[in-house]
Amino acid sequence: MTLDAVLARIDETLPEAVDRLMELLRIPSVSTDPAYAEACSKAADWLVEDLRALGFDASVRPTPGHPMVVARSEGAGRHILFYGHYDVQPVDPLNLWDRDPFDPELQDGPKGKLIRGRGASDDKGQLMTFLEACRAWKAVHGTLPGNLTIFLEGEEESGSPSLVPFMEENADELRADLALICDTGLFADKPAIVTMLRGLAGDEVTITGPSKDLHSGMYGGLAMNPLRLLTRILGGMFDDQGRITIPGFYDDVRDLPDEIRAQWQGLGFDHAGFLGEVGLSVPAGEQDRTPLEMLWSRPTAEINGLWGGYQGAGSKTVIPSQAHAKLTFRLVPGMDPDKVQELFRDWVRAQVPADCTVSFTPKAGAPASEMAIDDPAFEAARQALSEEWGQPAAFVGCGGSIPIAGHFKTVLGMDAMLIGFGRDDDQIHSPNEKYDLDCFHKGIRSWARVLDRIAG
Amino acid sequence: MTLDAVLARIDETLPEAVDRLMELLRIPSVSTDPAYAEACSKAADWLVEDLRALGFDASVRPTPGHPMVVARSEGAGRHILFYGHYDVQPVDPLNLWDRDPFDPELQDGPKGKLIRGRGASDDKGQLMTFLEACRAWKAVHGTLPGNLTIFLEGEEESGSPSLVPFMEENADELRADLALICDTGLFADKPAIVTMLRGLAGDEVTITGPSKDLHSGMYGGLAMNPLRLLTRILGGMFDDQGRITIPGFYDDVRDLPDEIRAQWQGLGFDHAGFLGEVGLSVPAGEQDRTPLEMLWSRPTAEINGLWGGYQGAGSKTVIPSQAHAKLTFRLVPGMDPDKVQELFRDWVRAQVPADCTVSFTPKAGAPASEMAIDDPAFEAARQALSEEWGQPAAFVGCGGSIPIAGHFKTVLGMDAMLIGFGRDDDQIHSPNEKYDLDCFHKGIRSWARVLDRIAG
Ligand SMILES: [Zn+2]
Ligand SMILES: [Zn+2]
Repeated sequence: MTLDAVLARIDETLPEAVDRLMELLRIPSVSTDPAYAEACSKAADWLVEDLRALGFDASVRPTPGHPMVVARSEGAGRHILFYGHYDVQPVDPLNLWDRDPFDPELQDGPKGKLIRGRGASDDKGQLMTFLEACRAWKAVHGTLPGNLTIFLEGEEESGSPSLVPFMEENADELRADLALICDTGLFADKPAIVTMLRGLAGDEVTITGPSKDLHSGMYGGLAMNPLRLLTRILGGMFDDQGRITIPGFYDDVRDLPDEIRAQWQGLGFDHAGFLGEVGLSVPAGEQDRTPLEMLWSRPTAEINGLWGGYQGAGSKTVIPSQAHAKLTFRLVPGMDPDKVQELFRDWVRAQVPADCTVSFTPKAGAPASEMAIDDPAFEAARQALSEEWGQPAAFVGCGGSIPIAGHFKTVLGMDAMLIGFGRDDDQIHSPNEKYDLDCFHKGIRSWARVLDRIAG
Repeated sequence: MTLDAVLARIDETLPEAVDRLMELLRIPSVSTDPAYAEACSKAADWLVEDLRALGFDASVRPTPGHPMVVARSEGAGRHILFYGHYDVQPVDPLNLWDRDPFDPELQDGPKGKLIRGRGASDDKGQLMTFLEACRAWKAVHGTLPGNLTIFLEGEEESGSPSLVPFMEENADELRADLALICDTGLFADKPAIVTMLRGLAGDEVTITGPSKDLHSGMYGGLAMNPLRLLTRILGGMFDDQGRITIPGFYDDVRDLPDEIRAQWQGLGFDHAGFLGEVGLSVPAGEQDRTPLEMLWSRPTAEINGLWGGYQGAGSKTVIPSQAHAKLTFRLVPGMDPDKVQELFRDWVRAQVPADCTVSFTPKAGAPASEMAIDDPAFEAARQALSEEWGQPAAFVGCGGSIPIAGHFKTVLGMDAMLIGFGRDDDQIHSPNEKYDLDCFHKGIRSWARVLDRIAG
């Protein structure tokens, strides 16, 4: 049976697959920071070279931002598009890493070997699971599986500004029968297919009080301090029950269907353990919701960064001229990112006194997504994953935003199947990101099994 | 008349006096930042050398922090001690300066020439007015005036940690009949003697939520964000009437005597102009108080710095582990700095949920001061200033903290006369600090007149 041969080939060649991933991880492709633009291009080039070596018709495709990678292998069967992203999160604070984030290493971890480095899990390690599955497939079959397009992005961590225009301009080339997206994780060590994703809206607020920094002795008590104003406004963003107070914020939120709530309750989510691993214990969301609802089906308002005044050693008796905050909102199906941003801005503006000003810097947003799981490929993939992991795979929600899933639907009319192998403790977006070696290994094997069922 | 000769000498030698000040301003004696410790020593050495050249018995006096400078000139009459500080504020944000803050320059300003540079006004330029008055006096009389001690500190901008121990250890040497302190300003271009000073309490708060930075998609809605908590706490520090809500905060505040309030109302303070110069218009303090009360006789709570999470370019969907704030409280007579700090801490602690923690880093504080203006030297100095400036000098309050005035009273039993020549637009503690040349010039002449009346 050729599937067994492919799986055996994956097992035998795992060390070489790890070496290839290490090479990709050494390229510091941080997309949010213009200083790393060249590294982003280099990562795209590296992937094109690898895809060509695999037999794809691959090319780097320039955009106004970081380039896309598109690779095509024509064949029989349904046209399947695979998506991943080669850009990574910033690495600060650097001093919290146990090693250079771009000098990856295979380390011994509490659950076996792991690959340490920025992007190991999000998303370089994950996207390479699919490429390695194709490589083993080719070695056994002599051809690539089915009828494939590979589509890799370099701006996912910076809001994907070039994505929709690129998809619109290349719609005929990118439109497939189904998309596969590998940027999610296992759920409590169970294989999972995400069918519901929160969206994202974002904004940056700057409040200006005095026209320059003031001495707090000379002006204190008479002059408005923009930090007082900003804390007053943002401090009122939640009520005592954890509910967001921005007027109209929940207007378009749909309640979770009872059968889905029941299915999620059946997952036996250990919220105490989940919070306990990061030193917390009290669910911080709306007090009348379950922890999984807080994470998957309820919107949030999060202050991602806040700053103003003096942050150095010692003290400085200053009334700063400005105060700043970066915020993001996780959205659920029904909510419109632009509307949420406007509701937020109106609410802030209404609280700014006559002699202070507020300005906003928009951030890219995306609506939430719900997949149509009646496509038989979903059930086929669920069975493939169940076989590989030795336990039933589940359809789950995901608290994070993967706007690409929404764009595939709205721009290209494709549904997406979100399958990934990350673990909750992978520390993506934090110092010391890692990817467990068994996730990488079984991830490759999982794709071989999925392709065996749906790429024919 | 020798006073006229001294004043003429001051006029003739002004360019050399400016050159000497420039030399002192070139030494970057930032006391809050350990990187500048050597520069602080260098400034002290420079002053000792200048005082010795003037005929003082001067020396650098080591402390656990930056050194003190003590200089003595014995003579007839009341023993008078002069105090100033040679350390300066940090200079960040550096990009808002029109030139290197430690490369001072004589520039043309809207009100005539000015000296631009960090410390030009606070307090190097001011302390040099007294030394230059002594220099001109010596040139005319052949001797220094009266019975003088000069006492210069290098830690005023960092909370004066070594000051009280040093004063206690050297009490016999430093105790005089009256202290002169030159670290204040004109009031609305009128000469002024400050007889009431606010004190200071300070604290730094760190709130820890999750044990590490989290991905806001994976954890958002379930995990407490310490920025949400910190804004909620500090955002509740003022009520709608601008009153501070910390329980007990106003308990020890004494109401201003009616005659003082009347005297202040007579000053014709143009609060609209004062706020207008810094782009503001709405008095931000307790709405049932006058603007001068807000500045001089009411306590404040000020957030001097606030930070947490991501502050770089673009956005980062992070729930940070920690949030930080630096605060200071301006105190009025009757308030105890330690008690205020404890009230603040208790109030914060009571609002921190079970799974988050708060820690505090204490900052040095000092109580407010009120001078006993029945000492005839106060009226003599008021007349000397009125003569020099051609308009009546006033007894005023000051919103800033000059803890030294309190320490002179409590440690050494001396009252202090606070006379200074800074202007409100000197931008002390901000970028582009300056000292108007006429303030420097008339400041030197003012001290010659004051010494002529009281140092005999
Ligand atoms: Zn990702
Ligand atoms: Zn000062």
